[in-house]
Amino acid sequence: MRATYMYGAGDVRVIDVPDPVIKNPTDALIRVVGSCICGSDLHPYHSMAPSARGSSMGHECVGIVEDLGRDVTTVQKGDLVITPFAWSDGTCDFCREGLQTSCRHGGFWNAGDVAGLQAEAVRVPLADGTLVPVPVEESSPLIPSLLTLSDVYGTGYHAAVKARVTSDTSVTVIGDGAVGLMAVLSARRLGAEQIILMGRHKDRTDLGREFGATEVISERGDEGVAAVRELSAGDGTHVVIEAVGHMPAYQQAIGVVRAGGVISRVGVPQYEDAPIGFGSLFGPNITLTGGPAPARAYIDTLLPGVLDGTVDPGRVFDLEIGLDAVPDGYRAMDAREALKVLVRL
Amino acid sequence: MRATYMYGAGDVRVIDVPDPVIKNPTDALIRVVGSCICGSDLHPYHSMAPSARGSSMGHECVGIVEDLGRDVTTVQKGDLVITPFAWSDGTCDFCREGLQTSCRHGGFWNAGDVAGLQAEAVRVPLADGTLVPVPVEESSPLIPSLLTLSDVYGTGYHAAVKARVTSDTSVTVIGDGAVGLMAVLSARRLGAEQIILMGRHKDRTDLGREFGATEVISERGDEGVAAVRELSAGDGTHVVIEAVGHMPAYQQAIGVVRAGGVISRVGVPQYEDAPIGFGSLFGPNITLTGGPAPARAYIDTLLPGVLDGTVDPGRVFDLEIGLDAVPDGYRAMDAREALKVLVRL
Repeated sequence: MRATYMYGAGDVRVIDVPDPVIKNPTDALIRVVGSCICGSDLHPYHSMAPSARGSSMGHECVGIVEDLGRDVTTVQKGDLVITPFAWSDGTCDFCREGLQTSCRHGGFWNAGDVAGLQAEAVRVPLADGTLVPVPVEESSPLIPSLLTLSDVYGTGYHAAVKARVTSDTSVTVIGDGAVGLMAVLSARRLGAEQIILMGRHKDRTDLGREFGATEVISERGDEGVAAVRELSAGDGTHVVIEAVGHMPAYQQAIGVVRAGGVISRVGVPQYEDAPIGFGSLFGPNITLTGGPAPARAYIDTLLPGVLDGTVDPGRVFDLEIGLDAVPDGYRAMDAREALKVLVRL
Repeated sequence: MRATYMYGAGDVRVIDVPDPVIKNPTDALIRVVGSCICGSDLHPYHSMAPSARGSSMGHECVGIVEDLGRDVTTVQKGDLVITPFAWSDGTCDFCREGLQTSCRHGGFWNAGDVAGLQAEAVRVPLADGTLVPVPVEESSPLIPSLLTLSDVYGTGYHAAVKARVTSDTSVTVIGDGAVGLMAVLSARRLGAEQIILMGRHKDRTDLGREFGATEVISERGDEGVAAVRELSAGDGTHVVIEAVGHMPAYQQAIGVVRAGGVISRVGVPQYEDAPIGFGSLFGPNITLTGGPAPARAYIDTLLPGVLDGTVDPGRVFDLEIGLDAVPDGYRAMDAREALKVLVRL
């Protein structure tokens, strides 16, 4: 079958690989209907050291169950399923607490003997804990929105939930990528009435307004901080969702958060050390939270709104390509020509 | 009157200064009955640059109201009052939210024209918002416990509240100073059933056991981390309260916190940059919280237990001195000969 591999910064190829097979009785085999390129895929696209072996890519997918290990009971052949961006047993204490990204027996795609999802098919470990069947045909116009439940919608929602957004909290979202826009949608869903979106791409921030942003700030750095403070009585907002992952975004978050407030990070940090002392977090009693979203945990909550059309998170996809065009998809996202790329198989 | 000033690292003197006077109609004048030396006073005691003018010291006090500005309505001359370690108006949005340390019109002792509380008397700004009258005589044996409400008990409680300690959370407290021990007492009060205290001073950790610690770990660094993990099924605890403020304590906190858990800091950080990236906080979805405690906010909650003898936080004082002996008190605390020093006037 065909699958996507990265061989170094900027070097993405779609190659022939052996078809996946059932290895364990808890596995499922999935024929991929739709996959995505993620903003986080751009981090290795910028920095990966050359590798002769390459790295399997992709962690978002909607597909059809083609085969099942003998112990799998919760999905059937032919089911359309969502695969969250981590696989998990669904039964350990972390899974029961809703932190499937720390599952005691689970893991992430593209690691060990588990391949990535930008491919024609994939072996899914721990299928009972991982997969969510959805009563939808693969020709459904809901496929893009269902795909967002694999990662970006759940990630935006995680940011808002960890920040404890309610109708009483003002919110700033830093970053107008897909996760930032999903954070806007999620904050609105949780009742926030003021949602300031910081982003520079008008087509994206326009979509952010439709998802619930009440104000858009295109300035960055000190000017951006001053603009947000002007919109929040000089104080900053109760919640700041940082959906970028670079240090300037973190510094901006410190600049626009209100004393006693929360910075919630879902952009994968591209730094290790950062300011957290008296002058940044400690003095004003700022809470810092966030991390990789347990997307699986949120599907039950978010799926009904997708199925009944209350929300349409699939609008974040503005480029749809076939599998062999995936290298072009990476280029388009890297050049900011595409907000988020849907790979349709 | 006599008052305590610091003139540089290790240089504390009790000197004659003019008696305080009412300056604003919202002021009160307090005759100090008891004050304290705080662990945080040791930070400048180690590092303060020499100063000819010196710095007024002390931020904890119980006293008797001697005089009042004409606008003060909530306390009367002769009242015994607790003064929290920040002064605040009690009416702004931050105060109403319980974050008096960020009061729009308040501030801290030893700053601007507001003096410190290791003195015979003090002018208290915004007396209505700041002072809490208590129906107790100045000869009462409750004075030490009431003094802890000025800072350390409220600070330990803040750590536990910000970490959302409940009966379902296991807790590690790093640091066997007064704040660490008050964090143990507070975590127990909030229902925690496993409280691991990390500290090396047996007399202090013995008191910690009486306050509710279920286990004591005297090792530090990697050995200390391994010991806590052994007590928590290899996972670390849901909550870690960091009551020291130095970088090794923060690193230890990262080592013993369970995935999805909370690190709550109340030791004043003696660093600005620290690890918060994928390998420390982000990957395992750790929340970092804490800051200077709004002690005023917690007095209403904690006072009844002190008055009825349910708790006896005043046991953290193991040395009682007069005002002129304050320099010796600093030396005793710095040498770890005293856990916490009560200055009795």
